[in-house]
Amino acid sequence: MSASSVVVETPPQYLSLPALVQLLETIFQRHGCRAEVARCLAENCAGAERDGAHSHGVFRIPGYVSTLASGWVDGQAVPVVEDVAAAFVRVDAGNGFAQPALAAARELLVSKARSAGIAVLAIRNSHHFAALWPDVEPFAEEGLVALSVVNSMTCVVPHGADRPLFGTNPIAFAAPQAQGQPIVFDLATSAIAHGDVQIAARKGERLPPGIGVDSLGQPTQDPRAILEGGALLPFGGHKGSALSMMVELLAAALTGGNFSFEFDWSGHPGAKTPWTGQLLIVIDPSKAAGQSFAERSQELVRQMHAVGLKRLPGDRRHQQRERSQHAGIAIPAEQLQQLRALAQD
Amino acid sequence: MSASSVVVETPPQYLSLPALVQLLETIFQRHGCRAEVARCLAENCAGAERDGAHSHGVFRIPGYVSTLASGWVDGQAVPVVEDVAAAFVRVDAGNGFAQPALAAARELLVSKARSAGIAVLAIRNSHHFAALWPDVEPFAEEGLVALSVVNSMTCVVPHGADRPLFGTNPIAFAAPQAQGQPIVFDLATSAIAHGDVQIAARKGERLPPGIGVDSLGQPTQDPRAILEGGALLPFGGHKGSALSMMVELLAAALTGGNFSFEFDWSGHPGAKTPWTGQLLIVIDPSKAAGQSFAERSQELVRQMHAVGLKRLPGDRRHQQRERSQHAGIAIPAEQLQQLRALAQD
Repeated sequence: MSASSVVVETPPQYLSLPALVQLLETIFQRHGCRAEVARCLAENCAGAERDGAHSHGVFRIPGYVSTLASGWVDGQAVPVVEDVAAAFVRVDAGNGFAQPALAAARELLVSKARSAGIAVLAIRNSHHFAALWPDVEPFAEEGLVALSVVNSMTCVVPHGADRPLFGTNPIAFAAPQAQGQPIVFDLATSAIAHGDVQIAARKGERLPPGIGVDSLGQPTQDPRAILEGGALLPFGGHKGSALSMMVELLAAALTGGNFSFEFDWSGHPGAKTPWTGQLLIVIDPSKAAGQSFAERSQELVRQMHAVGLKRLPGDRRHQQRERSQHAGIAIPAEQLQQLRALAQD
Repeated sequence: MSASSVVVETPPQYLSLPALVQLLETIFQRHGCRAEVARCLAENCAGAERDGAHSHGVFRIPGYVSTLASGWVDGQAVPVVEDVAAAFVRVDAGNGFAQPALAAARELLVSKARSAGIAVLAIRNSHHFAALWPDVEPFAEEGLVALSVVNSMTCVVPHGADRPLFGTNPIAFAAPQAQGQPIVFDLATSAIAHGDVQIAARKGERLPPGIGVDSLGQPTQDPRAILEGGALLPFGGHKGSALSMMVELLAAALTGGNFSFEFDWSGHPGAKTPWTGQLLIVIDPSKAAGQSFAERSQELVRQMHAVGLKRLPGDRRHQQRERSQHAGIAIPAEQLQQLRALAQD
């Protein structure tokens, strides 16, 4: 997205993380979420904004609010955790959000991973409308390796097909490093994340070629043509497409959740959150042979820098986090005004 | 590889699978492998040839032979299986091949996966010179979901770096389907598999753009320039590069194996096999909620066809397998002669 913005943004105001969390928490509660759900989503969303991950920051709040208003998602849902086997945990999110479902199962998942060496969490009947890295990064902060996949909603044409079927289906991974922040990435298996298409459309920017098709299946660089009846392509041709298929199988078939093409929200105008499933795999690297994993991962990073790599995945986010911790989180004044209005609705 | 071949190949002779396995087994034994190792590698290699996966079929035999002759790999190694936790198995391959290490741990791995719901196998001190799909497909044939990664040898430039560091670092995945063959893919995280570069060089073909660089770091479509001091690029830019990094972390740091840049075979002329590690994750989908996984995966495949997909990953291989079962496995006469000579060395 190299084209410059045509939207003139108002100068930012600066909020501390706790202040932003509290504001968002109030919004979520006002619009139908019980306290724990509101807290969970507010921390997730404020954390993304703090890290400069704007496409999953406060930009998402109107979508959350319209979805809650539509009755599509249950902000009151209480996730039901099922202890299935020595290394397998399931959660029925009860048509609520995925993040509170993960929070409810997290302690059991970590305890199983530490005892069995690896454990899997299968969340179904859940809505995921956020970045995926906030789900994996905390595991790495406590010394574990985590991998997660979530499927979303039909908007990606499988490589070699004519019409969309897959979701943007991200894969996120986090691993500890002996010194410094964990190694973390979160990548959509589509050529671009859906949130970035929305942001480009809002700003009136054009997209790079090879990213999407219009409603007639023709290549387009216009984000609005993609959003209005068009579709995205997978990243990396048949390989990204195969990974997207894997995400459908792991996040939906293996959890008991919906595939990206299986839910019908047409009866809920304003609904934006895909009603699918999520899989998390957590591994305890202390079970591995040889030198400590965190020392080894640091050696890999050292060598990546030695061959000329300037920035690792996650670096930009961690740097922005540091800036936000010093200067506060910058929110354009107009956007902040909208948020405050939503908190008083 | 659309350019036509400039090598005139001799007409093929047709061998049954058992006949090809026996021929290869003899070669492996004659060149220093103990019986079980020879059997394991012969079945792997013959299976690839049967499926039309030529870059990992008998084409690889001279590389195996020169590696064994160089003393780089131990064909006599006996893998040591370590039962670490309820869902964690390790194997020290003893500087032998990875396939016999997997075979030695396989029963324990499956039993743990079925009991705990998920299990991980960490192989270290191992050499992997074959396709990765033969390692995962058999799990899907018995109803399990399997994911494997293996790192290789420095030949891929991380996205944003100047010089190579990663291996071709493939990811393979297999899942059962209620009817028909399992869903299987095996993808190098490099823009092309190393074996395909070797085949293109041998045939004098040019490669598509965006795949590799020459010894000066400049883009090239000449496979020889890539093999002679050049390097490959990751597939899909920064995303494929992130996945390749993940493979290094899982296959090396999490197993106790070497990173792709850590071994030095310069004292073993003729050595071709990367001395690294391999990780396998096996999940028992009968622990999942809802309809049976195999029914669900079949529904996904049905919908993939409905949006116009002609061929799934693995389809071409399974079709070739069927043809080979009827007509025999076609081996060019000259190549067969070379194999028979190696069996009598």
